[in-house]
Amino acid sequence: MTAGPRVDTPPPLRWDGATLHVLDQTRLPGEELVIALSGADDTAAAIKRLAVRGAPLIGVAAAYGLAMEVARTPTEPALERGAAVLAGARPTARNLGWAVERIGAAALAHPDDIASATRAEAEAIERADEAASAALARHGADALDAVLPSGPVTVMTHCNSGALAASGRGTGLGVIAELADRREVHVLACEARPLLQGARLTVWELRRLGIEHALLVDAAAPGLLRGGAAQAVVTGFDRVAANGDVANKVGTYGLALAAHAAGIPFVAAGPSSSIDLRLPTGAGIEIEERDAGEVRAAAGALLTIEGTPCRNPAFDVTPAELVWALVTERGAARPVTADTVARVA
Amino acid sequence: MTAGPRVDTPPPLRWDGATLHVLDQTRLPGEELVIALSGADDTAAAIKRLAVRGAPLIGVAAAYGLAMEVARTPTEPALERGAAVLAGARPTARNLGWAVERIGAAALAHPDDIASATRAEAEAIERADEAASAALARHGADALDAVLPSGPVTVMTHCNSGALAASGRGTGLGVIAELADRREVHVLACEARPLLQGARLTVWELRRLGIEHALLVDAAAPGLLRGGAAQAVVTGFDRVAANGDVANKVGTYGLALAAHAAGIPFVAAGPSSSIDLRLPTGAGIEIEERDAGEVRAAAGALLTIEGTPCRNPAFDVTPAELVWALVTERGAARPVTADTVARVA
Repeated sequence: MTAGPRVDTPPPLRWDGATLHVLDQTRLPGEELVIALSGADDTAAAIKRLAVRGAPLIGVAAAYGLAMEVARTPTEPALERGAAVLAGARPTARNLGWAVERIGAAALAHPDDIASATRAEAEAIERADEAASAALARHGADALDAVLPSGPVTVMTHCNSGALAASGRGTGLGVIAELADRREVHVLACEARPLLQGARLTVWELRRLGIEHALLVDAAAPGLLRGGAAQAVVTGFDRVAANGDVANKVGTYGLALAAHAAGIPFVAAGPSSSIDLRLPTGAGIEIEERDAGEVRAAAGALLTIEGTPCRNPAFDVTPAELVWALVTERGAARPVTADTVARVA
Repeated sequence: MTAGPRVDTPPPLRWDGATLHVLDQTRLPGEELVIALSGADDTAAAIKRLAVRGAPLIGVAAAYGLAMEVARTPTEPALERGAAVLAGARPTARNLGWAVERIGAAALAHPDDIASATRAEAEAIERADEAASAALARHGADALDAVLPSGPVTVMTHCNSGALAASGRGTGLGVIAELADRREVHVLACEARPLLQGARLTVWELRRLGIEHALLVDAAAPGLLRGGAAQAVVTGFDRVAANGDVANKVGTYGLALAAHAAGIPFVAAGPSSSIDLRLPTGAGIEIEERDAGEVRAAAGALLTIEGTPCRNPAFDVTPAELVWALVTERGAARPVTADTVARVA
C-alpha cells in the first residue's frame, strides 16, 4: 500500500454569495471540472446525476439551490416549485428534504425579505455541516481509539464519505482521517459498484490525504474481513431510523454482517440531520432504484449483453443490531438503541 | 426480467481425439472465439488467463493438456514437467491437481503405452464430469424442491457455474437449470467483479437456456436477500475441506452470510473431485491473489487512478455452518458436517 503526496483537496462546493460552484464528481478522478449552478432546476439535475453527491453535501447544495431560486423569483409559488424539484431529486438521503424544509421555513418566517433570509439560512446550513463533520470525526475517532489494538490499524470503508460527500473532511472518511492524525492507519477502500465512488473518489481523496490504501472489489470485502485484514469498518450514512437502522450505499449491509461475524466494530457516521426520527424502523426508508444502464456498464464500457435486465438499488438497510456505534456531531450512540439514537439525533 | 430465445450453448470444450478446442471465455459475450490447444504449456496459459475456467472444466482441460503433452513426448520427464506446469496454473481449485494426478497415475500404470493410456484417462475424466454434473443437478434440485415455497421462485447465483464452468449443464447453474425444468425459476445473477463472469457468462448462458434473469452488482446482493428478493442462493465450489468449509469465487462468503441471516438455503454444488479430504478445514486452502490490474479496470476501461494499490483475492472461504447443503454427484450433505461431507466425497 503506497500513498501519493499530501496535497489539498479542491472544494467539492464553493458559494460565492450568488452562484454555487461544484466539482463535477462524475468526472473524477480523471478531470477536475467545476460547474456553476444558479437555481433549483440545475442544482436538482446535478444532484440527480451525482455530479454532487453524499448525503450531507446534497443537503447543502439543495439549500443553496433553493436560495438561488428565490433570489431570482422571491415568491411563495417559486419557493414551492423549487422545493418540490429539489426534494424529489433523490429519495433516500434524509438531508435533502431536511435542508429544503429549513430553507422553506426561513422564507416563510421572513416574507418581506425572502432572498436574504434564505441565503443566510443556506450559509448557516453549510457552516453547521462543516462543524458537524469536525465534531463527529472526533467522536468517531475517540470511540475507535479506545478499543482498537495499539500500533498500525487497517480500516475498511465503502463508497465515499469524505470531503467530497460532506463539508469539511466528511463523515466516515472524516473519522478515518481524524484517526490517521492520531496513529498509523491503512485504508481498504471498496470500489462501490456500480458508480465506483470508492475507486474514483475515495482513492482520489486518500492520495491527497497521504493515507496508505488499497482498493478492492466489493465482493472481496467479507472474505478479507473474515481473514483479519481490517480491525474496523467505517462508513457514512444516508438516513437513520429512530431505532438505529441505517440506510447507506448499497453493500453496506454486507460489510456490517461480515464485520459482526469477524467481531470487529462497524461504525456509521454522519450529521444528526441524517437521522429521521419520524421513521420507527428502516423498513420505512424508500430505497432508490437507479437505471439498469449503470449496472450494464462501467466507465463507459459495456460489461454484459446489451439490454440485459438489471436490479439496481442504490442503497441498503443495515439493522441497528449490526451497528457497533452510530456517530453524529452530538456523540457516539453505543450500543445503538432508540434511546441512544435519540441522544445523538 | 425477460429472457432471450432458447438456443443451444456452444461447447466450452471439444476434444477431437488429438487437439482440444476451447471457447475463449475472456471474449464472451461479445465474441465466440474457439482456440486450439495442443499441449501442457498452452493449456496452462489458457487456464491462467481464464480463457478456460470453472473448477471442473479446468480439471478436464488440464487432463487433456497433459495427455496431449505426453502424446508428443511419451517420457516420464515430459510427464513430470507438464504436470508441474498445469498444476501450478491456478492454486485454489482442487480439480486441477486431482486431474493431473489421475493422468500421471495412468501414465505410470502403462509405461509402454503412455499416450493412449493418458488419452483414455482424460476422456474418462470428461465423461465422469459430465455424469457428475447431471447427477448433482438432480440431487440439488431435489433438495431445494422439497423446501421451496410452491409457485415461481427466484434463485440468486454468483459468478458462473454453468455449462461454461463444467461438463454438461454445469454445477450451481446446472442445479438451477434442473429446477427450471420442474417449475418457474427467475435468476438473480451477481456480476462477479473483477472479471465479471456473472455479467458476461452467466447472463449469456441464461439467455440461451431461456431462463428469466436480472443482473446485479455484487454489493446489492445482501440487501436484496434481506428484502426477500430470492428464496435460495446456489453456487458452485472450487475446493471443499473435510469439515465442509467451501472455497469459491470471491463474494460467495458474503452471499452465504446474507442467506443465513435471511433464513434461506445456501447450496454449494460441484463434483466430488472438488472435495479435498486431506484438508481438515478451509483455513488450509490457498487463496489465489491475482493481478491488481483486474481491479483497476473493467472491460478495458480504467476505473481508478493508474497505479492504485489493490487487494485482489480470487476466492473466499465460507464456513460449513453457513452452507445449507453441499451437493455432489453422490448426493446432498445436509447438514454439512465432516460425516456428511465424507459420504458425498
